[in-house]
Amino acid sequence: MAWIEPEVTRKPRRPMFLCVLSNTKTAHIPKLSAAGKTAELTDYTPAGDAELIETGNIISVPVLPMTPPYDTPTPAIMTRSALKLTDAPYHFINSGLIVTPDVPYIDLKAQPGEDIREPIAVKDVQGIYERAKLLAKRLRNQVDHVVIGESIPGGTTTAMGVLMALGYNGSVSSSADKNPLELKKRVVEEGMKASGLTFGCLKDDPMKAIACMGDPMMPAVVGLVAGFQGTDISVVLAGGTQMAAVYALIKHLGLNTEKLAIATTRYVVEDKSASFTELTRALGVPVVYVADPGFGKSELKGLHKYETGTIKEGAGAGGAMYLAGLYGITQDDFRAEIESLCKLLKAGQ
Amino acid sequence: MAWIEPEVTRKPRRPMFLCVLSNTKTAHIPKLSAAGKTAELTDYTPAGDAELIETGNIISVPVLPMTPPYDTPTPAIMTRSALKLTDAPYHFINSGLIVTPDVPYIDLKAQPGEDIREPIAVKDVQGIYERAKLLAKRLRNQVDHVVIGESIPGGTTTAMGVLMALGYNGSVSSSADKNPLELKKRVVEEGMKASGLTFGCLKDDPMKAIACMGDPMMPAVVGLVAGFQGTDISVVLAGGTQMAAVYALIKHLGLNTEKLAIATTRYVVEDKSASFTELTRALGVPVVYVADPGFGKSELKGLHKYETGTIKEGAGAGGAMYLAGLYGITQDDFRAEIESLCKLLKAGQ
Repeated sequence: MAWIEPEVTRKPRRPMFLCVLSNTKTAHIPKLSAAGKTAELTDYTPAGDAELIETGNIISVPVLPMTPPYDTPTPAIMTRSALKLTDAPYHFINSGLIVTPDVPYIDLKAQPGEDIREPIAVKDVQGIYERAKLLAKRLRNQVDHVVIGESIPGGTTTAMGVLMALGYNGSVSSSADKNPLELKKRVVEEGMKASGLTFGCLKDDPMKAIACMGDPMMPAVVGLVAGFQGTDISVVLAGGTQMAAVYALIKHLGLNTEKLAIATTRYVVEDKSASFTELTRALGVPVVYVADPGFGKSELKGLHKYETGTIKEGAGAGGAMYLAGLYGITQDDFRAEIESLCKLLKAGQ
Repeated sequence: MAWIEPEVTRKPRRPMFLCVLSNTKTAHIPKLSAAGKTAELTDYTPAGDAELIETGNIISVPVLPMTPPYDTPTPAIMTRSALKLTDAPYHFINSGLIVTPDVPYIDLKAQPGEDIREPIAVKDVQGIYERAKLLAKRLRNQVDHVVIGESIPGGTTTAMGVLMALGYNGSVSSSADKNPLELKKRVVEEGMKASGLTFGCLKDDPMKAIACMGDPMMPAVVGLVAGFQGTDISVVLAGGTQMAAVYALIKHLGLNTEKLAIATTRYVVEDKSASFTELTRALGVPVVYVADPGFGKSELKGLHKYETGTIKEGAGAGGAMYLAGLYGITQDDFRAEIESLCKLLKAGQ
C-alpha cells in the first residue's frame, strides 16, 4: 500500500511549498491548544516551526515546540524532513505573528488575531487578502504547483468558528490527544454571541466570517488561492480541519475550486472526535491526499503518540509528505530522516 | 551600438531580480539626498519604489518619488518596465525600512540605519548578514542568475563612508544634478570622527565599517552574495557607486568575487563629479555592464533630466535594463514602455 493515498507519481516541474505563520490570541485560552508546552508558549510555536524547518533547529525561540509527556515534537519535523529530502523551493509567510522567527519570511503586514470572543477577531481582512493575492501573482512565473501549509496555535477553534458562521456543523480536530471539543464549542458560541452571529448567517459573506470568527492565516491562504486563479497552477491546501475551513471560505467566495486539493495526515482523517471526512465530502473537495508517515514502526515514543492522537498535523506536514511522495521518496526513507532529526534534537524520547 | 555594454545575449534559465529596500537617517540631513521631493519624503522613497515596481503605481505612500523641477520620476520606472517586459521573477527585501510598502516583501528584521554621525550607524550587522545568507541558501534551488538592486535614500553618502573606512578615496555619485560632494565629505568626516576612525583603518574589518559608517542595505547584499558562494549562481550587483562600495566590502571580507559583476546606467559612469570607473578598476570588478535607456530621444522633459545628471540610478534600474537586454528587449521597446508608464503616472512632464 502506498504511504500517500491516492497514490502520487508525477513530479511537478516547478513546485513550491508555502507555510503561512500566524498567531491568534484565542490560543491563550487555557487548555484550548496543545501546540506548545503551555498556552503562553504557543506564541512561539509558528516562529519555532519556521526556524526548525529552515535550519533543523530552533534559533531564537526559547524552546522547541513539543507536547508533553513524551515531548512529542511539532509536526514541523515532518515538513523539515520532506523539504530536505526533496530540496523543493519554499517560503514562509508572516500573516499576523506575535513572535517572528530569525529566518527570512515574506511579510503581509497583518496584525495578530484577537480572541474570537472579541467582536473583531481579524483586522484588515481585505488588506491581508489583497497583499496575499499580489504575492501569488508575483509567484505565478516561478511555479506550476503550490502546496500551502499553516502554523497557527488555536487554529482549529477559529476553523470551527468560521465553519459555524458559514453553516457547517463539522467538529474540528485538535493537537491534544483528548480533543477539548466542549471547550471549543463554548468559546465559539461566545464568539458568535459577541459578534451577533447565528449559525450559517454569514454563508454569503465569508470575509466577514473571517473578521468575526477567524484568524489571520485564513485571508492569507484565500488571497494566495485567488492570486493563482486563471492559471494552470494547481494548489494543495496542506492541513486538516483548518484547511477544510479555508476551502469552505474559498467556495463561499465563489472562487474556482477545480484545481484545488487538500493534503493531510492519516491522524486527522482517523480522528474520531472530528469529522474531517464528512466535512470535506459535504464541501465537495475534489481530492484529499492522506499521508501516513508510519510512526507506529518507529522506536521513538514521542512519535508513537502521533498514532494515538497527539498533534496529528500542522506546519503543512501532510502536504510536505505529499510533496515527498511526488518526488518518489519512500515512507521508510522519510521516517529514517525524521528519526535522525529527532535524535539530533533529543525530542520524542 | 548595443544599449547594454558589453553586449549581452545569453538568456538565463532561472534569473531572479532582488531589490533590497532600506532607510538610513543620514538621508534626513538637509540637501544630502534628492531621492524624494523633501528630506522627510525620502523616508517613503523605497516603499514607493516597491509599490511602483509591483503595481505600476503607488498604493500607500503619499507621493510618487520624484525630483523637481520637471518631476523627474524615480528610476524605479525603469525597473518596473524591465520586469514587466521580461516577466522575470523578483522579490523585495526589507532590510531596515522606516516606511514599509503595501506589497509583499521578505523581511530580514533589520532596524533602519542611524545617521552616520552617530557612533553606531547600523545595529546587528552580523544578524542581518546571517539572515540574508539563509535567504540566499533557500533561493539556491530557484535561480541560476541573480541581479541585486537597492533603494535607499542617502545611500551614496554611506557608500562614501564605508569606502573611506576601507581606504578608498573614490568620490561617490548623487541623485541631484549638482552633487553636494562637499556636504557629503563633511558628513563622512564627522562620522569617522564620531566612531574614532581614520582613513583605511577598517580595511581588515569590513563588518565594523558597515556598523560605523554604512547602512542596512549593505549587510543584506553582502549576506546574499555570501549565501550564493560555492554554487554556479552568478550575481550582478545593480547600482552605481553604492554597489561599488558593496563590492569593496565583499572583497575585503575575502569572499570569492569571480562570479560577480556590477550593472549600472550610463549616467553613473559619465558622472564627472564621481569616480565610478576609477573605483571599479581599482577594486578589480571583473565586469561592469553599462545600460543606456536613450532618454535623449524621449519627448518627456523629466526623462531628459537623466541625461543632464538628475537621479542617474537606483532601485536596480541599470541591472533591470541589463536583464531586459538578456531577454532580447531593444532600447526602443524599453523606452516606449517607460514613456507609456510616465504618461499614466503623469510624471516627467
